[in-house]
Amino acid sequence: MSRIVYVNGEYVPENEATVSVFDRGFLFADGVYEVTSVLGGKLLDFDGHAARLDRSLRELDMAMPMDRDALLEVHRQLVARNAIGDGLVYLQVTRGAADRDFAYPADTPQTLVLFTQSKPGLADSPAADRGIRVISIADMRWGRRDIKTVQLLYPSMGKMAAKAAGADDAWMVEDGHVTEGTSNNAYIVKGGRIVTRQLGNEILQGITRNAVLRLAREAQMVIEERPFTIDEAKAADEAFVTSATTFVMPVIEIDGQTLGDGKPGHVARRLREIYLEESRAAAI
Amino acid sequence: MSRIVYVNGEYVPENEATVSVFDRGFLFADGVYEVTSVLGGKLLDFDGHAARLDRSLRELDMAMPMDRDALLEVHRQLVARNAIGDGLVYLQVTRGAADRDFAYPADTPQTLVLFTQSKPGLADSPAADRGIRVISIADMRWGRRDIKTVQLLYPSMGKMAAKAAGADDAWMVEDGHVTEGTSNNAYIVKGGRIVTRQLGNEILQGITRNAVLRLAREAQMVIEERPFTIDEAKAADEAFVTSATTFVMPVIEIDGQTLGDGKPGHVARRLREIYLEESRAAAI
Repeated sequence: MSRIVYVNGEYVPENEATVSVFDRGFLFADGVYEVTSVLGGKLLDFDGHAARLDRSLRELDMAMPMDRDALLEVHRQLVARNAIGDGLVYLQVTRGAADRDFAYPADTPQTLVLFTQSKPGLADSPAADRGIRVISIADMRWGRRDIKTVQLLYPSMGKMAAKAAGADDAWMVEDGHVTEGTSNNAYIVKGGRIVTRQLGNEILQGITRNAVLRLAREAQMVIEERPFTIDEAKAADEAFVTSATTFVMPVIEIDGQTLGDGKPGHVARRLREIYLEESRAAAI
Repeated sequence: MSRIVYVNGEYVPENEATVSVFDRGFLFADGVYEVTSVLGGKLLDFDGHAARLDRSLRELDMAMPMDRDALLEVHRQLVARNAIGDGLVYLQVTRGAADRDFAYPADTPQTLVLFTQSKPGLADSPAADRGIRVISIADMRWGRRDIKTVQLLYPSMGKMAAKAAGADDAWMVEDGHVTEGTSNNAYIVKGGRIVTRQLGNEILQGITRNAVLRLAREAQMVIEERPFTIDEAKAADEAFVTSATTFVMPVIEIDGQTLGDGKPGHVARRLREIYLEESRAAAI
């Protein structure tokens, strides 16, 4: 590793990229983040991520660290300096460093960190060809999952539980209904209808979700935005997840139950194709 | 500020006390903490905090960063180097720095940070003489509050909501029942009986709670460990909270409803007195 990382106005080698131990991101998880995919050196749906960042920050009484154009420039600088072809740019804003107190500090400068991850062939994932297997776990996260905070310990635990069970990811279930995956939105397809949970405090307002649902509607697909049960999911014809870095990823097994013929479904495959085509065309 | 802070084996000036931006404490809130009070230069219930740290870490598949005696030595060094008479030692352990991935990294060294806060007259708080006012808010935290993680954004938001309402703190309510305060355990007293929620995943296993309940029993007080409603709390004779740094703190008002005569109750005052006396005597 020898990345150049952005920290509070400076571009520094990654081993010098540090924050204060008093940073509220470190002490209180008092921060939010975004992950923007890069394909062919260009950013996918940058404006969608910038808009969601603004919303997350406002929900926590924080302001945008810089305007849209300045933020875009930092993204582009990092992509260029790290020669990212395919990969991602991670961005995190915290309320800054102050002596530890639950109450928010007054007039403390925010912390802004961005770094890249190189992922050659990101759009040609073998996992997308074979589909992923998920297990279900109870959703024990906090109640405001629509705010994209760094309180990610439970999703991490869920990912580890999935690995321990020989699966790829976990779908979280609350009151009998699937909320979402550990880092993605969840969908099932039954009788040609796409079902995914409606927006609310219970799930992340996925940028990829927004785009995929729009494209599905344009392709005359029928969409039901409503909660679905884990049993309904296991009886589905197919299933998939969406996220900024996995795009549309087919799910072929839930809790050991094979969906359909155990191969990625045609709705998921078609949406992945359309999404990647349109995202590449609109990338900046 | 010119504290000496402990970071991964080094004692450094606080402005040099940093962690990597790749630290999982910063990126995933993948870390736990403890706060140990200091009175007269001595640590209160150090072994209780060390035992709880061990439990929190084990629940997250992490190990203790060093043994009890070594940890005690770091605490004592910090108290001495920062000339802490009354105050606290804050300790945080994270899963360490690794390239960002929800899955836990293999063989990454943990991050261990400790720092002090000086709070002269910590045991002679004017707030304890007049009592504090609390509001109630929905408990929207994750489901494993028994693990003392740094996922503290919601308690911070609760503290800000309390301040905005002209109160001192917030009690969190789930399914109609009080869980606890933003950074303390909650108690009511009615007809001479002390009522506090029983241990479980819903609340922190307070070190001060343990000590105070033991002392209350020794003083022949009657204790009911069960959930209580916010309405029951508002109709109580008195109320209080306990935490490592506020010890036993009387509550005189809940959601604008004055308890008793609006002065700290005698059970809270007596328990505070006993707790401080015994804690000072047992401090190391």
